[in-house]
Amino acid sequence: MKIARFSHSEGIRYGIVDEGELVVLSGDPMFAGFETTGERIPLSDAALLAPVIPRSKVVCVGRNYHEHAAEFGNVAPEEPLLFLKPNTSVIGPGDTIVRPAISERTEYEGELVAVIGRIAKNVSADDALDHVFGYTVGNDFTARDLQRKDGQWTRGKGFDTFCPLGPVIETEFDAESARLETRVNGEVRQQAPLTDMIHSVADIIAYASAVFTLLPGDVIMTGTPAGVGPVQAGDTIEIEITGIGTLRNPVRDAPPTP
Amino acid sequence: MKIARFSHSEGIRYGIVDEGELVVLSGDPMFAGFETTGERIPLSDAALLAPVIPRSKVVCVGRNYHEHAAEFGNVAPEEPLLFLKPNTSVIGPGDTIVRPAISERTEYEGELVAVIGRIAKNVSADDALDHVFGYTVGNDFTARDLQRKDGQWTRGKGFDTFCPLGPVIETEFDAESARLETRVNGEVRQQAPLTDMIHSVADIIAYASAVFTLLPGDVIMTGTPAGVGPVQAGDTIEIEITGIGTLRNPVRDAPPTP
Repeated sequence: MKIARFSHSEGIRYGIVDEGELVVLSGDPMFAGFETTGERIPLSDAALLAPVIPRSKVVCVGRNYHEHAAEFGNVAPEEPLLFLKPNTSVIGPGDTIVRPAISERTEYEGELVAVIGRIAKNVSADDALDHVFGYTVGNDFTARDLQRKDGQWTRGKGFDTFCPLGPVIETEFDAESARLETRVNGEVRQQAPLTDMIHSVADIIAYASAVFTLLPGDVIMTGTPAGVGPVQAGDTIEIEITGIGTLRNPVRDAPPTP
Repeated sequence: MKIARFSHSEGIRYGIVDEGELVVLSGDPMFAGFETTGERIPLSDAALLAPVIPRSKVVCVGRNYHEHAAEFGNVAPEEPLLFLKPNTSVIGPGDTIVRPAISERTEYEGELVAVIGRIAKNVSADDALDHVFGYTVGNDFTARDLQRKDGQWTRGKGFDTFCPLGPVIETEFDAESARLETRVNGEVRQQAPLTDMIHSVADIIAYASAVFTLLPGDVIMTGTPAGVGPVQAGDTIEIEITGIGTLRNPVRDAPPTP
């Protein structure tokens, strides 16, 4: 089942994607279940939003594909390398990524994203996936020069608009058979089966839940495969994961700050 | 004016500290102003909570006092070094800090904390303090061994209970004349005037607001002076800032995870 969050004349609504239409739900299905209002809207008329706004955490994992770790000369760590993006960096499908004037090199990082649906603290890898509401596509957009300059990745990965999520949450996703592909202006840049991940989604959630209490709406960005690279104003980034959909975001430059 | 957040028989309430009593407010003063309910409660009867729960960000600054940077062999950076703690790490005055079993060295870091009261994006240092609701005391509690092992500080500084805040928010605080003192079991470990900060509160807010949109309730932890050190189960940490008060938290060990 694919869940969308969208702008509606009466406010923000959630819907189930069904044959080109959105079956409107009476509330956020993560908390309110799947009761419908009876209304159906053509999907093409709906302005989709980020399918979730984390109220607590965007948990990210660095260097989780061997070839990506190698492209920066790093050895993949034995344990997941955790970092956080702020929820103010989240934007939705179609929203514009804004390159800050102080960075000279901004790069896409296409990723599978798990959306937490139940409180998770010290869960085992065996139980971890029971705490996942569904999966979406994410872009761990990065000012590579600032990431390297600071050492800590918070600034380089934390700017407003640096965390596109969407287009929908798929609740019945199978990572075993899925592939991730990132395209810039239609040209393929990243392509990998999700089974190339070093630490599985279940392992990452178990590991992270030993540190933080994971709350409903928290998202886990599971790392990016090889092929990251720079984008410029005017480019459009598409990240597609089999069975979920395509997250598409244009890029522009910020005006210089006053 | 000192603002407390506390448990009340009817739920969580805010109050103004007045001559040993809490003047109960009708809502969160950051959003609802200072209307009172008419009720007064003895301060000694109130169970104080963290004075704010950030819904978006706990923004922290590393190496913001020269002597603290030097004690780890680091040069203080020319720009504020930003990192994030998750809001799930926040606890209140009197709450217990839990040392995770996987760390062998956990340390206090006493800090001045600015609480953002108005949306701030690309603000100048001259305008930055207009966006501050008030100031409280914080402990950037850290698993030093994990911080060093990971390189990224998220895990070492992000465990549940690793961000004590309180006891109150002072809305009319003057950093120019204030001192910070940290005591462990009554013994002084950190002592510094807040004017020893490398980057002022105004400079940090201006810098951070060029990266993230700062939202009401976000907190800015402004770095710790020299004198950090380890604590053990059974210790009690007190961090006092002139004009705000004393944040006191006991420490215990987590049970080994199953």
